Amino acid sequence: MSSLPASLKQISLFLERLPGIGEKTANRLAFYFLRLPEQDLAEFAKNISQLKSKTKLCKNCLNLTEVDLCSVCSDRSRDETVITVVEEVLDLLSFETGNIYQGVYHVLHGKIDPLNHVSSDDLHIEELLERVSKQKTLKEIILATNPDMEGEATAMFIKKRLEQLKTRLKRNFKVTRLAYGLPIGANLEYADYMTLKKAMENRNEL
Amino acid sequence: MSSLPASLKQISLFLERLPGIGEKTANRLAFYFLRLPEQDLAEFAKNISQLKSKTKLCKNCLNLTEVDLCSVCSDRSRDETVITVVEEVLDLLSFETGNIYQGVYHVLHGKIDPLNHVSSDDLHIEELLERVSKQKTLKEIILATNPDMEGEATAMFIKKRLEQLKTRLKRNFKVTRLAYGLPIGANLEYADYMTLKKAMENRNEL
Repeated sequence: MSSLPASLKQISLFLERLPGIGEKTANRLAFYFLRLPEQDLAEFAKNISQLKSKTKLCKNCLNLTEVDLCSVCSDRSRDETVITVVEEVLDLLSFETGNIYQGVYHVLHGKIDPLNHVSSDDLHIEELLERVSKQKTLKEIILATNPDMEGEATAMFIKKRLEQLKTRLKRNFKVTRLAYGLPIGANLEYADYMTLKKAMENRNEL
Repeated sequence: MSSLPASLKQISLFLERLPGIGEKTANRLAFYFLRLPEQDLAEFAKNISQLKSKTKLCKNCLNLTEVDLCSVCSDRSRDETVITVVEEVLDLLSFETGNIYQGVYHVLHGKIDPLNHVSSDDLHIEELLERVSKQKTLKEIILATNPDMEGEATAMFIKKRLEQLKTRLKRNFKVTRLAYGLPIGANLEYADYMTLKKAMENRNEL
């Protein structure tokens, strides 16, 4: 690639560091940048350089925000008596895109993952417990970590800590977990064994 | 996506304009930017904003460059008697990556495509003819436009113009086209009819 000008090469090399982007794609994207209006590139550059200084974590739920409280926590119409615990901000966005949930969130920013040296102390679990202690009207905590081994372990760990808290504070609220089962549109023929097992166990009466 | 902070949303929206990147991928990439060191982001932003002012077309072959002559044209070891004509700079890069060619290039920056209102006048064909007129040592022009309808039409158009030029200048040089055939590693079972036909027609004696 000796014939790529340095300015283009630098951009291509940066893009190659992004997940899912290889050398060929990075080159194609860098060339596409060249065709965009100068004005748009300048604005994109400004946004990129300000990104980290502008964004911070919501002091309530640890979602990303530019002000103290994120758009969910500052929305008075949201139901504060239900908190959904998610691993990442992207998970929160999935719920928000569907517009299927009216409660609030708590973002852990990770999951317990011993193989990658992530323990419960690295997650924002203490913040959740503190929040729960303070909020007397709480009715339910929905543990919406991913349905994999680490997400499961994280959910179990938090459930245990919440049960201890309930006993200590002499309060009561539900702790629930997302349902397991066949995804909508799935084909039984290609479903994996564990999903089928869960779908059988959790079958509902019609 | 109301809960995405504005600074992140702007970056995501920009990335969504790039080829092959949808909303979900754009969001994931924008989040990835957040995790990169501030220093790297600042440098990337600088490169992006300088990109268009720094790059220009090589005055000889129209490849991208930051100086007057591109890295190929300024390389004294390249064989200037052979010119390969390609549609885009990315095509040139494919040849350069393989290190399979020692001649020079001419980049058309497009192909004749009436459906998208691109005519022969929109391509850098006159520059090629002028270059050929001036260069008395020229031995061969390899037409390496893509093997599709537009690329084919472009190659035929340029061949005709070059033949006229040969007659007018009373000079001789070869005009060739890339070979058609089965790609290496291909499976005959899945090869398309046109490729098979060409592979049969152009078969070689062993």
